[in-house]
Amino acid sequence: MFFDDLPVGYRFRTEARTLPLAEIIGFARRWDPQPFHTDPEAAKESPYGGIIASGFHTILTAFLLTLEAEVWNEASMGSPGMDELRWLKPVYPGDTLHTEAEVVSSVPSASRPDRGRTGIQYRVFNQGGDEVASYRATHILRRKPS
Amino acid sequence: MFFDDLPVGYRFRTEARTLPLAEIIGFARRWDPQPFHTDPEAAKESPYGGIIASGFHTILTAFLLTLEAEVWNEASMGSPGMDELRWLKPVYPGDTLHTEAEVVSSVPSASRPDRGRTGIQYRVFNQGGDEVASYRATHILRRKPS
Repeated sequence: MFFDDLPVGYRFRTEARTLPLAEIIGFARRWDPQPFHTDPEAAKESPYGGIIASGFHTILTAFLLTLEAEVWNEASMGSPGMDELRWLKPVYPGDTLHTEAEVVSSVPSASRPDRGRTGIQYRVFNQGGDEVASYRATHILRRKPS
Repeated sequence: MFFDDLPVGYRFRTEARTLPLAEIIGFARRWDPQPFHTDPEAAKESPYGGIIASGFHTILTAFLLTLEAEVWNEASMGSPGMDELRWLKPVYPGDTLHTEAEVVSSVPSASRPDRGRTGIQYRVFNQGGDEVASYRATHILRRKPS
């Protein structure tokens, strides 16, 4: 799929993935070693009452599920950024996440006719249907060869 | 340090860290397996002319350097989100990154007197002084016990 195949309003949904406790602690030890992500005892005293996943772990899981959905991968030339990244609810060990996505903007490049910018709103849900995180990403995508 | 110790205008700078090729490829294989992050041959044909770090790898490195600076860690109760995350220039293997930070907002909680929200603008630079990424994060920080 190319830039031209993803108009505003296009939606897709990813597969789901479960975050086990060991993966949550392993990720946090490497990248986000705050006690409420790495230490079950300390986490009991935190506002969350137990270990929760690093927000980065949640977003990376959502992003990887999106890549695995193979919607825009082949056309991808990278990304200039993300906006309104929100961590809405804690993600606990054993939670199963999936992502729902909708194209919210689609702008062909004025200077480079081979590409365009596609804005996609991503919403991440747990197994109970709670929205746990969201973000809007801009993707630079190749246009269909003419 | 507590919420009260980080007023608007407070600045700090982190140590620096180098991203070796093997770490860049390893991170991307796990979390962001796009060819321009994982495959040196395919990356030559990409707009970047060679392997570049996943933007998530860049941001996580900047975030970990920030934790290691031990400015707000002890007071941290988590984060509701990030805004205006930008990947401004490619990060290449061997680049050495550091982060410069400035408090841009500081709002005590109206409902919970033990905490406040501190907004920090982070800018990530390479060894040549180029700004390669930036983001604004909101941190929920404990107030100084009275």
